[in-house]
Amino acid sequence: MAGYRNKKAGAEILPGVIILKKALLFARELLEPVLREGSTAVDATCGNGHDTLFLATLVGETGRVLALDIQEQAIKNTRERLAAAGLLPRVTLVQADHSDLARYINSPVAAVMFNLGYLPGGDHNLVTKPETTVRAVQAALLKLDRGGMVTIVVYRGHAGGRAEYEAVFSFLSGLPQREYSVLEYRFINQAGDPPLLLAASRL
Amino acid sequence: MAGYRNKKAGAEILPGVIILKKALLFARELLEPVLREGSTAVDATCGNGHDTLFLATLVGETGRVLALDIQEQAIKNTRERLAAAGLLPRVTLVQADHSDLARYINSPVAAVMFNLGYLPGGDHNLVTKPETTVRAVQAALLKLDRGGMVTIVVYRGHAGGRAEYEAVFSFLSGLPQREYSVLEYRFINQAGDPPLLLAASRL
Repeated sequence: MAGYRNKKAGAEILPGVIILKKALLFARELLEPVLREGSTAVDATCGNGHDTLFLATLVGETGRVLALDIQEQAIKNTRERLAAAGLLPRVTLVQADHSDLARYINSPVAAVMFNLGYLPGGDHNLVTKPETTVRAVQAALLKLDRGGMVTIVVYRGHAGGRAEYEAVFSFLSGLPQREYSVLEYRFINQAGDPPLLLAASRL
Repeated sequence: MAGYRNKKAGAEILPGVIILKKALLFARELLEPVLREGSTAVDATCGNGHDTLFLATLVGETGRVLALDIQEQAIKNTRERLAAAGLLPRVTLVQADHSDLARYINSPVAAVMFNLGYLPGGDHNLVTKPETTVRAVQAALLKLDRGGMVTIVVYRGHAGGRAEYEAVFSFLSGLPQREYSVLEYRFINQAGDPPLLLAASRL
């Protein structure tokens, strides 16, 4: 049997390339079919604005993105990133705890993204906490439209990270399966607790 | 904020549609970029031939698929399915235990699919076993080309299913991360132990 890279030049598959997507990229892949021109989406933990930019791109000119973060620096970084891309007009930035997100949402949303832990480049002692994170995820699920999805990238490596993961996992694994489908996506042979993804789709 | 289904007719997202792919479909999605015209692939547990048909379609006319099953009925069912699709010429069928797969493979392969448990429609007492399954997965990994992938759909609901899962999980979670990337993909809020996917990509 011939080696499978003999037939075509190995343009897509090169030695050393990881084919399995990391948690954050897979979250985006899951959300792509959920979002469209005119959608409403929420970045519950906007951090440096990478996910906000992703969401703002997908919802188009007629869509809206609500971006929250408890840290002023995160709001500033996100504003700059979105302004640089010319997408700030479709984004509402709010400095608030993610567990308060329901206050800023008036109608069902298509997607809510969470990226837990600390602000990259910021104070690593300021981290999301189990209790408020579970409240925030619960609030997000209640605001979700049918066919909508909540994605949560979870870090277990920092102090308190594992407890937060266990709290969110426990909450999500108890959701009624007739109303939500909840997926866990994680790498199982890597040192240093790589981020994992939890994704809840409303049926 | 407007409902996100107002803008376009809900052609892709309808109420009740599950967006998150089941384990078996996600295994196929992962393998699509791994396989191409001329690839060599293995269906280590061909059962009723659904995965064999999938692989035979992707490897094209110049590719090869090796399909194994320990049960005569499975080989028969797979032969019929492939013949009906006109794809039998690119498939080699072997009635053998999946742990013997290395005997039938002479050069690196792009993909190996496992679908554990019992033959649907067959004798539910004939199931794959922890020890031979781990040996089979190990043999598959050793035959894998760089950039190749092994996918394993695991069932925990039948007698012995959980022990088999734990044995395979334990083996895969110990693989060196510089050589393999191992993913677990599973639904966490569903009754009845839905199938889950383990996927190992060779770096």
